[in-house]
Amino acid sequence: MTIKQLGEFGLIERFRSKTKTDLSVIKGSGDDCAVLKLDKSNYQLFTCDMLIEGVDFTLKDSPYLVGRKAIAISISDIASCSGKPRYCVISLGLPKNTKLGFLDKLFKGMSDISREYKVNIVGGDLSGNNRVVIDVSMLGIVERKCLTLRNGAKPGDIIFVTGSFGGSISGKHLKFTPRLKEARNLARGFKINAMIDVSDGLTQDLSHILKQSKVGAVIYENLIPQSKEAVSLNDALNSGEEFELLFAASRPQAKKLLKNPDYKPIGEIMKIDYGFKLVSSNGREINIRPKGFTHF
Amino acid sequence: MTIKQLGEFGLIERFRSKTKTDLSVIKGSGDDCAVLKLDKSNYQLFTCDMLIEGVDFTLKDSPYLVGRKAIAISISDIASCSGKPRYCVISLGLPKNTKLGFLDKLFKGMSDISREYKVNIVGGDLSGNNRVVIDVSMLGIVERKCLTLRNGAKPGDIIFVTGSFGGSISGKHLKFTPRLKEARNLARGFKINAMIDVSDGLTQDLSHILKQSKVGAVIYENLIPQSKEAVSLNDALNSGEEFELLFAASRPQAKKLLKNPDYKPIGEIMKIDYGFKLVSSNGREINIRPKGFTHF
Repeated sequence: MTIKQLGEFGLIERFRSKTKTDLSVIKGSGDDCAVLKLDKSNYQLFTCDMLIEGVDFTLKDSPYLVGRKAIAISISDIASCSGKPRYCVISLGLPKNTKLGFLDKLFKGMSDISREYKVNIVGGDLSGNNRVVIDVSMLGIVERKCLTLRNGAKPGDIIFVTGSFGGSISGKHLKFTPRLKEARNLARGFKINAMIDVSDGLTQDLSHILKQSKVGAVIYENLIPQSKEAVSLNDALNSGEEFELLFAASRPQAKKLLKNPDYKPIGEIMKIDYGFKLVSSNGREINIRPKGFTHF
Repeated sequence: MTIKQLGEFGLIERFRSKTKTDLSVIKGSGDDCAVLKLDKSNYQLFTCDMLIEGVDFTLKDSPYLVGRKAIAISISDIASCSGKPRYCVISLGLPKNTKLGFLDKLFKGMSDISREYKVNIVGGDLSGNNRVVIDVSMLGIVERKCLTLRNGAKPGDIIFVTGSFGGSISGKHLKFTPRLKEARNLARGFKINAMIDVSDGLTQDLSHILKQSKVGAVIYENLIPQSKEAVSLNDALNSGEEFELLFAASRPQAKKLLKNPDYKPIGEIMKIDYGFKLVSSNGREINIRPKGFTHF
């Protein structure tokens, strides 16, 4: 059996089921960040993301934007747990004939966004490789009472997103803005039951929340904010690397959230028996089978 | 200009000089671990290491030992700062046709050594790639008063090592024991001025201490513990991935250290003007130009 047959999420589940952690680990594998005890009021967040030439970017892309993206992805993971990013280390695999100019631009992209989001680059590792590989690990901090995971959505909750969806492949995936400001506003002013960032695709990532919260959901075609690059509804529903926030909050919280145009309602959390459905613009209920990006 | 022309250490220096960090960062790039403020008595340690198929291991190696090594390297980095490892995240790049059996063994290697050294595996990231790439980021903790960096060696200090050197390529590099027990014994019972783990080679890594401490050194051929796999003195001096501890302590401390056979004296820290010399078994002083493994 190869890993392609088991699939990315099957593999993650396989590893997770074999991993034991001690009591200082609030949440291990299976969310956007690991959550670790830090002090009386705060948890520490820990996450990693690997970018590979030919998979996540090409050498035709701007090295500045590739570097920026490598850091931005981890900031987005910290944001989806409602935390603030603090520190990162960077492992780089590089071909020997890599031009110094390429690397300088890559590093400038990393360092500019790190400064903008107050992330300290504190270390790294360099290796020779036949392709450019970038792995960023990031630490963040979140107030205990603000932590948001994937598993807290409840039937009746309203589902919200930031931004708009579709066509990230045409460039947004390299230029996206990690929704840290929006996430921190949520953390400070509202009670959010579950949150994730859209990296695999809107339906795929919502299905992660549904699975871990043991609930169902309905979303409305007319409410899905489509970007002008979106080529179809399906594109908006399945486009990966959008890096928008997707979250669920109770109805009383939702009432307050609706006053801020940054947060757009797209549907409702249902009981698990309901399943996962889309109501099309002509009122038809369609079962959703989550699609989106998987690595294997 | 390519990165090969600048070299691995030139590149690291180039990045380091461009990186600004805030006051919570006690030590950023340029040591075995980054050192971060944690609480009144402790610092947090943060390190990452990337292993690449064809560079650090081959598919003919035991996947169990490759997994073990990926974790052991980071434990060794934490040990060289005198800390205790706590948490890690693992990024994996994998070819689509990777056999599940390979991955299960790789993961078993990781998980067995993690359990042995009380490291919690708390997350990861999976990516498709044409080669197996493993990047481990690890967090540790160290009592403030026990922290050892590369920059504290003083003229007159005695230089010590653990274990023996040479021939790691013949298998030790996959089976080494991270010297955590020895490092923690040092932390608890002695005042150590500088420490590093031998990953690039004994002379190369000692030269890192010398450069950062702004000192010179003399080492004695007769005192270098050579492993039975060592093919020559040069091999013992330059063999990479030995993962033994190399450290410097004052003479009064050295007197106490000599009572423990785990710690073997190999020479003495000198003033910077002295340079870096080896006294051969016939008494000749030879200038050392550090050699060892570099990636570019």
